[in-house]
Amino acid sequence: MTIVAKPPRGYKVEVFFKPKGIAVIGASRDPEKPGHVILYNLRNSFNGPVYPVNPRADVILGMKAYPSILEVPDPVDLAVIAVPAPIVPRVVEEAGKRGVDGVIVISGGFREVGPEGAALERKVLEIIRKYGMRMIGPNCIGVYSPPAGINATFFDPQRQGLPGSGPIAFLSQSGALGAAMLDWAEMRGIGVSRFVSLGNKADVDEADLLTYLKKDDATQSIALYIEGVEDGKRFREALEDTTPHKPIVALKAGRSEAGARAAASHTGSLAGSYRVYEAVFRQTGVILANTPAEMFDLAMALALQPPMQGNRVGIVTVGGGSGVMATDAAEVLGLRVPEFSSTTQSKLRRILLPIASPRNPVDVTGSAVDEHLLESLRVVAESGEVDGILLIPYFNVRGISEQFPEKLAKVITEIRRKHTIPVVVSATGGRRTWGLSRLIETMAGVPVYTSEAAAVKALWALYHYGKWLKRVGTLEEHIKKHQVRLIEIRH
Amino acid sequence: MTIVAKPPRGYKVEVFFKPKGIAVIGASRDPEKPGHVILYNLRNSFNGPVYPVNPRADVILGMKAYPSILEVPDPVDLAVIAVPAPIVPRVVEEAGKRGVDGVIVISGGFREVGPEGAALERKVLEIIRKYGMRMIGPNCIGVYSPPAGINATFFDPQRQGLPGSGPIAFLSQSGALGAAMLDWAEMRGIGVSRFVSLGNKADVDEADLLTYLKKDDATQSIALYIEGVEDGKRFREALEDTTPHKPIVALKAGRSEAGARAAASHTGSLAGSYRVYEAVFRQTGVILANTPAEMFDLAMALALQPPMQGNRVGIVTVGGGSGVMATDAAEVLGLRVPEFSSTTQSKLRRILLPIASPRNPVDVTGSAVDEHLLESLRVVAESGEVDGILLIPYFNVRGISEQFPEKLAKVITEIRRKHTIPVVVSATGGRRTWGLSRLIETMAGVPVYTSEAAAVKALWALYHYGKWLKRVGTLEEHIKKHQVRLIEIRH
Repeated sequence: MTIVAKPPRGYKVEVFFKPKGIAVIGASRDPEKPGHVILYNLRNSFNGPVYPVNPRADVILGMKAYPSILEVPDPVDLAVIAVPAPIVPRVVEEAGKRGVDGVIVISGGFREVGPEGAALERKVLEIIRKYGMRMIGPNCIGVYSPPAGINATFFDPQRQGLPGSGPIAFLSQSGALGAAMLDWAEMRGIGVSRFVSLGNKADVDEADLLTYLKKDDATQSIALYIEGVEDGKRFREALEDTTPHKPIVALKAGRSEAGARAAASHTGSLAGSYRVYEAVFRQTGVILANTPAEMFDLAMALALQPPMQGNRVGIVTVGGGSGVMATDAAEVLGLRVPEFSSTTQSKLRRILLPIASPRNPVDVTGSAVDEHLLESLRVVAESGEVDGILLIPYFNVRGISEQFPEKLAKVITEIRRKHTIPVVVSATGGRRTWGLSRLIETMAGVPVYTSEAAAVKALWALYHYGKWLKRVGTLEEHIKKHQVRLIEIRH
Repeated sequence: MTIVAKPPRGYKVEVFFKPKGIAVIGASRDPEKPGHVILYNLRNSFNGPVYPVNPRADVILGMKAYPSILEVPDPVDLAVIAVPAPIVPRVVEEAGKRGVDGVIVISGGFREVGPEGAALERKVLEIIRKYGMRMIGPNCIGVYSPPAGINATFFDPQRQGLPGSGPIAFLSQSGALGAAMLDWAEMRGIGVSRFVSLGNKADVDEADLLTYLKKDDATQSIALYIEGVEDGKRFREALEDTTPHKPIVALKAGRSEAGARAAASHTGSLAGSYRVYEAVFRQTGVILANTPAEMFDLAMALALQPPMQGNRVGIVTVGGGSGVMATDAAEVLGLRVPEFSSTTQSKLRRILLPIASPRNPVDVTGSAVDEHLLESLRVVAESGEVDGILLIPYFNVRGISEQFPEKLAKVITEIRRKHTIPVVVSATGGRRTWGLSRLIETMAGVPVYTSEAAAVKALWALYHYGKWLKRVGTLEEHIKKHQVRLIEIRH
């Protein structure tokens, strides 16, 4: 192995999110080819120059094409490569000569296809190192970053939605899952800051990206889908460095024995024992998710809401049954739903309808109007008796109005001025509930989940992250960030 | 207590789903009043005569109003009552005199408000018994049954969607949750056969309805949300009677101590220990769900697909990571994802791309086209090496086409002719994936879930129900039902 050592974590990673000019090597006139779609997507997203590189074309998508990246004018510091694997070493060499800092290699046909591909991948990596470049991939679906105006993917806009700008960075070892989850996030109304499909991770890995994201102003929380890492020490150090400043939610596939076997066969690298990863995540303050949607659910709560500083949950609900289910979910996860003091119960009783219950959960009942919910929320937030609040409106109920999201935004702003207590919402229902839920998220910066269980899990993540921040001594820093402003779910 | 004994389980319950004529007592001209909305909804849904009853109106919604149900012409065998609680005894007495078989009492102000209300409720029940009528409620949101053309609820069509006809019956002790889940089911594309909001359950209870649903041709599976039952023996007997013929999925609130406390405060009746319910459900073959959405997810699988006859799962996936996560989820739930025999692997290898994996999970890869998935599905179904199959297409992938749902429907029909092996699908993605998923459900009768975990949980339910049917000796009967026809998710 003549490959020189990996550069320090995060070295030159910025080029992938703040490039000055981008060359697309393997840009194609054939609309079915990835090299065509990538060019199309970049032209429609990037605010700087984009250069098609193709020795057999003069014009692609109305843009002047260059026979080689060596001919491309300034500025160009990033190359997206979609040529057959055997040609990749040559074009990467040219990219190095041209002085670019980063390449994204979309092309497959490397380590994932066997020993010959692995040799080819090593050859590419040697060239990367020789020129001091960084590489994402090979065998990846690219980079997507709305705040940077970068859609360096071959996602077909006819087949796939893409989310707007938002607070969540998403790193995925699986391309298919990454694409599907971006599509999901768009439908769900969650925005992302950076998405990277890591592919074979020959060079840039999670540790590099975490090191960058830690200081990235566009990112408030990080969602991480991993199947396995090669350099455990480097990964662990990056986690340790990052979580005191930015929350990380990880989803690790290969939990079961059969799952680990499947993972080994899928990624071609040893997936490692789930228990080892679990221990590392616990020791470094990483929140563990069980499904891709849960990963986003938790990352969203961690991005939008301050951490819980204790495990006491207050619940204010329109539906008694929902209060019961929420309480169940909280207790199962080690959170507490304590009875309120008689003082707080008296205050609530003055607000509520006679048939309502001022205990915890506060059951405002189906006869309630907006103000019963919102005034109860205010009293509970000010009680000092809970560390986080779950609000359960039912938009089917006659008294809960279309103005609820707007009114809630006002109350949340007032609460946030005095208290750093997180609030999450659970709202079960259909299309109208879905629409009003998205309004709550954008207007009030409060995440809304479709089930009590998911909302409570979000509080659980806020609790565990708060505990971690206390332990590493960065709780105050983090709380201040949330006092300064409401973080927006998407722009 | 002068109340005569409860009639046998299921007595006269049919009147709620097959009435000849319906009187709405408390029908109102005020569009804000439940009595107005109920009349509006019944007029727009019911295929037989609907009679408004209101002593202070001649015409309501263009329909002739009657001063009392005693004046209403034939046929009338069901009365929906939405008058103030103190008047309920009188109008129920009149309904009895008029000879109706069933009343649905929407009105609140009974046991749920305290001892006085409880006395009033007992009074109403005495009248019910005196005339041999049955009563749903009081304090409920009504009955909804699309195949019967009955929408005897005060759901505002502006605020709330309602599902079409489908195979799932849904009984809910919580009105708010019931309404919200119907709204959810509409958005989700799941149809229902019967929905009953049980309210205070003064007369008709779960046991009555289960006894009816057991023989109800419109119903293939039953979803049951309960907080507590009073007559445990009766309930248990109804479960025992029903599950050999129709699957039941139950969601029981009040699992934790704090949750049970909240439930007691909410329903006013002792919720009983969760562990007792859990044991009863286990002993009677009831499938236990953890959230309302999961209850419908599982009920849908049980309605549409035959049971698993063993715990071996075959997985066919476009995304390797999804295969790993599905395997994890399966093993955690006690299902197995066995390696295929070398014969089956050889057969798969002949179908698949060279980079694909013929092991279990079969990873057709992101380069696959429809036929790779479908031919693999066929081979796995015919192998005899698994008892259920999870199929994971990714609709973002270029090779998976818009025709996939139609093609899958054909393959499923062929498989079903020879084998009684259940198939479920997991498809993660955005709007397009959502639309194609609904097409798969309607065209192929295969339930589609948005996560591997949810799809695997559905297989788990099919496995446990199959085990139960074997034990009680009705597996063959059940299998035959699924061989005869594909059951439709909605009409």
